[in-house]
Amino acid sequence: MNEDFALKLKLKVDETEDMLKCFLPTAHGSWSVIADAMNYSFLSGGKRLRPLIAMETYSLFGGNDSRVIEPLAAAIEMIHTYSLIHDDLPAMDNDDLRRGKPTNHKVYGEAMAILAGDGLLNFAFETAVKAFDACEDIETYKNVAKALEAIASFPGLNGMIGGQVVDLLTTEGKLPCDEATFRQMDELKTGALIECAFLTGALAAGADSEDTALVKRIAGKTGIAFQIRDDILDITGDEAVLGKPVGSDVKNGKKNLATILGLDKAEEEVVRLSDEACRELETIYERHDESDHFLSELVEYLTNREK
Amino acid sequence: MNEDFALKLKLKVDETEDMLKCFLPTAHGSWSVIADAMNYSFLSGGKRLRPLIAMETYSLFGGNDSRVIEPLAAAIEMIHTYSLIHDDLPAMDNDDLRRGKPTNHKVYGEAMAILAGDGLLNFAFETAVKAFDACEDIETYKNVAKALEAIASFPGLNGMIGGQVVDLLTTEGKLPCDEATFRQMDELKTGALIECAFLTGALAAGADSEDTALVKRIAGKTGIAFQIRDDILDITGDEAVLGKPVGSDVKNGKKNLATILGLDKAEEEVVRLSDEACRELETIYERHDESDHFLSELVEYLTNREK
Repeated sequence: MNEDFALKLKLKVDETEDMLKCFLPTAHGSWSVIADAMNYSFLSGGKRLRPLIAMETYSLFGGNDSRVIEPLAAAIEMIHTYSLIHDDLPAMDNDDLRRGKPTNHKVYGEAMAILAGDGLLNFAFETAVKAFDACEDIETYKNVAKALEAIASFPGLNGMIGGQVVDLLTTEGKLPCDEATFRQMDELKTGALIECAFLTGALAAGADSEDTALVKRIAGKTGIAFQIRDDILDITGDEAVLGKPVGSDVKNGKKNLATILGLDKAEEEVVRLSDEACRELETIYERHDESDHFLSELVEYLTNREK
Repeated sequence: MNEDFALKLKLKVDETEDMLKCFLPTAHGSWSVIADAMNYSFLSGGKRLRPLIAMETYSLFGGNDSRVIEPLAAAIEMIHTYSLIHDDLPAMDNDDLRRGKPTNHKVYGEAMAILAGDGLLNFAFETAVKAFDACEDIETYKNVAKALEAIASFPGLNGMIGGQVVDLLTTEGKLPCDEATFRQMDELKTGALIECAFLTGALAAGADSEDTALVKRIAGKTGIAFQIRDDILDITGDEAVLGKPVGSDVKNGKKNLATILGLDKAEEEVVRLSDEACRELETIYERHDESDHFLSELVEYLTNREK
């Protein structure tokens, strides 16, 4: 990663972190522990990539009202966080550690962790609808409604949750552990929320149908490349850098796309997808006479990262 | 219950049931079991009161576009259903039966039941945003956005989920089992979603601030009276009529507002709240020159029901 980009990225991630802190849930009574449990996971780090992608894509298409994009971007990160809390539950992956810290149910108990996940998924929409407060004309209402539609569909039963189900079914031996299944799982489980972030930014900014179609393709390729990189890191990564045990999939007897394809082919696939996504981003830059290519650098970084 | 009302109610509940069936989730691939699990609970009966209330309140304030109110009303029922699935989980109430049928996790396993609940909460919003498809002018966009705000906030951490937390904390001995706590729990756990249904109808129809304030008071009183009736039925009800074991709270060592107040005082409280709600509904009928008093009859029925 070149130093210039590293600096820009750090600055933008810090800004995103500060933005997210403006949308923290608070509880108004004796049940305040639920807000603590939600915030424990929401504030436990993470790369903040999804809200960052949403905000960058919004800017790329000329969006310039933070009151519109910030609640939408924050909502996507809340959805990401709830999915991690529920994924870690004893009945699911039964993980004790997440980002180097005890998982939510380890700290707050299983019942509260279920409610904290529910609370974050619900609060995501409570937060997202705040974007309507900034709407003054029908065009902005339309754009926000379309973005909200993306935020409601990509994480759902034919998106991220569908991916969780495929994961569960392969673990239980009810679906084959083959390339096609894992590709679909990755597209849904990880890809869908990355796509959601790109699309939310584009739709909130009122991108036209040609741009939206391009963004969809870029997002799909970035999402799957991102997940394959994750799979590769689970085999070759550095535990100290990752903050989580390496080889957890392999140890749990779980395959992933990198183990199925083999490391070399997986690496090739990441490069191919990442290159294609960046080429398509060039088309958007040309269409909009855009000289800031941060999103391309971000896509390259995401798919070549070491953690 | 007089026969005339009984007939009208049956007709409307049947219509609501048919309406809900137009919004069933379907899964587009190998993960279709998630849609089965979601529909198992969503189609397992229930009184359908919340969507019915939303649609009746919408009509009362002059709303007449089914494409607007139906997805919003269906969303509230989905949220109600998800909350029951998660409430029944082993880590929560650990119930084996719901409406006379095995609970979701008994049929689909714990992991799938968690995902089915998540799926329904998410799908509620995926469904609700369809109301925007019917928006052609800025007024309708504004009304739908306000209704969506209600659907996103009442079920959340300072509404229904907050009530679940209060329930959990009293069970764990972390909050006192006194009248004030149980009143708050009932207001949140049950009342919030009843309020949500009334408010959604009113806001989607563009009710003015005076009407909205009245609806809020009516909804609050109906919600708590409805829950106290539930508490009374848990002590005095007929198992065959209820379709669930009577005395389950008492058996689990759990108090409720009826056991704390005593049956007589609880009954008085229900009558008082129900009467007040109906009187305030009269004010609305007068303001709108409305001769159909179905909502008052419904409120009376809800708070005096035998199941």
